[in-house]
Amino acid sequence: MAMRRREGTVSAAKHEAIREAATRAFLEKGYAGTSMDEVAALAEVGKQTVYKHFSDKRQLFTDIVLATTHQVDGLVRLIAQTLDASDDPRSDLEALAHRFLTTLMQPQMLRLRRLVIANAADFPELGEAWYELGFERVLSTLTSSFSLLDERGVLRVPDPESAAEHFVGILLWIPLNKAMFTGNEHAYTEDALRRRADLAVHAFLDLYRVAEHPLARNNPATDSTDRPL
Amino acid sequence: MAMRRREGTVSAAKHEAIREAATRAFLEKGYAGTSMDEVAALAEVGKQTVYKHFSDKRQLFTDIVLATTHQVDGLVRLIAQTLDASDDPRSDLEALAHRFLTTLMQPQMLRLRRLVIANAADFPELGEAWYELGFERVLSTLTSSFSLLDERGVLRVPDPESAAEHFVGILLWIPLNKAMFTGNEHAYTEDALRRRADLAVHAFLDLYRVAEHPLARNNPATDSTDRPL
Repeated sequence: MAMRRREGTVSAAKHEAIREAATRAFLEKGYAGTSMDEVAALAEVGKQTVYKHFSDKRQLFTDIVLATTHQVDGLVRLIAQTLDASDDPRSDLEALAHRFLTTLMQPQMLRLRRLVIANAADFPELGEAWYELGFERVLSTLTSSFSLLDERGVLRVPDPESAAEHFVGILLWIPLNKAMFTGNEHAYTEDALRRRADLAVHAFLDLYRVAEHPLARNNPATDSTDRPL
Repeated sequence: MAMRRREGTVSAAKHEAIREAATRAFLEKGYAGTSMDEVAALAEVGKQTVYKHFSDKRQLFTDIVLATTHQVDGLVRLIAQTLDASDDPRSDLEALAHRFLTTLMQPQMLRLRRLVIANAADFPELGEAWYELGFERVLSTLTSSFSLLDERGVLRVPDPESAAEHFVGILLWIPLNKAMFTGNEHAYTEDALRRRADLAVHAFLDLYRVAEHPLARNNPATDSTDRPL
């Protein structure tokens, strides 16, 4: 019994070592550029051990990429924590937008995004699953939070699903595309990301804030002082 | 002289055949999945002919991808034609948004986007050039057009550069990511794309239209009838 438990622990440790090695290799060299030999060497196990745990490179890749959707758990919790009880939507949205942007712009996250996109045509089911468990889960959490803020009268959001799409679209389209197309993982300074987050929230609140002074809303004189930059 | 001209014509025709074959191969099989042998076979020329025109696969790939930025010329012209003299911003922006979205969602364009993103880390200079000549050129054309509409009093756009970013972000973030991640080139029906274009323009005009009735702007009663859906 003790013997079997030790075997199980060793096996689990090897499984984890293979997964870690494969994650590193895939993120660095892509799917085509990674071999099972390399994964075995990086994990410091024999090649036959890799095949004992994962039937082929395809299965290993699928397992690794699907597991990364757990990284979204943190963002999902953050959204609910930041927004659901908010009474200061500008400052809370700015904090959320900033965390969101800096998280997605991390080099590791950019490489993961590139890896999934690069292989989506060859792994359509994996791509679908990643989109649902990652991308769409963030959207539906934002949708719930905006719906709640609308009910509480903190924002005016007649269509929370569109609002969620506008929030991420305004915030992310430019910096994520710049990073994806240019391959530059440090295209923005910390200050530039903060400025982008603040500007995105400014536009978002122009769409969804509760009107306090209806007449002030479209008055260029007050609006210009209202702009953060 | 006639001889040399004919040689030149044959050589130019072969050059074009190689470029066409390479474009097809790269878009279908990616950079790593395409060999010079295959390009030669597809172009129906000898392998040494391919190497006479392009020193290696890397140079061929760079040439092909850079040339695709000319496809942006059409979008750039369309933006200026549609917006610069517009007196009906809603209907003109809807037409532009729809053409924009349907153009970028074409299977060929999606594959090109995936190809550039997949190889950006290995071809950083190509990625930078493509971003500037493609992505940024569209943004700067939109910026000029919105600036003009502001001057003419058709829209109220105090920051045309941000407005350009909002227009594309609101319109494109969701459908392009869905296509990129899932690999599904037909994720949206023609109707769904039109509906997306109209909704994006609706939000954009909430941000940038000239206020006709300042009191009506934030009145939920009038606003709900104003929504297209």
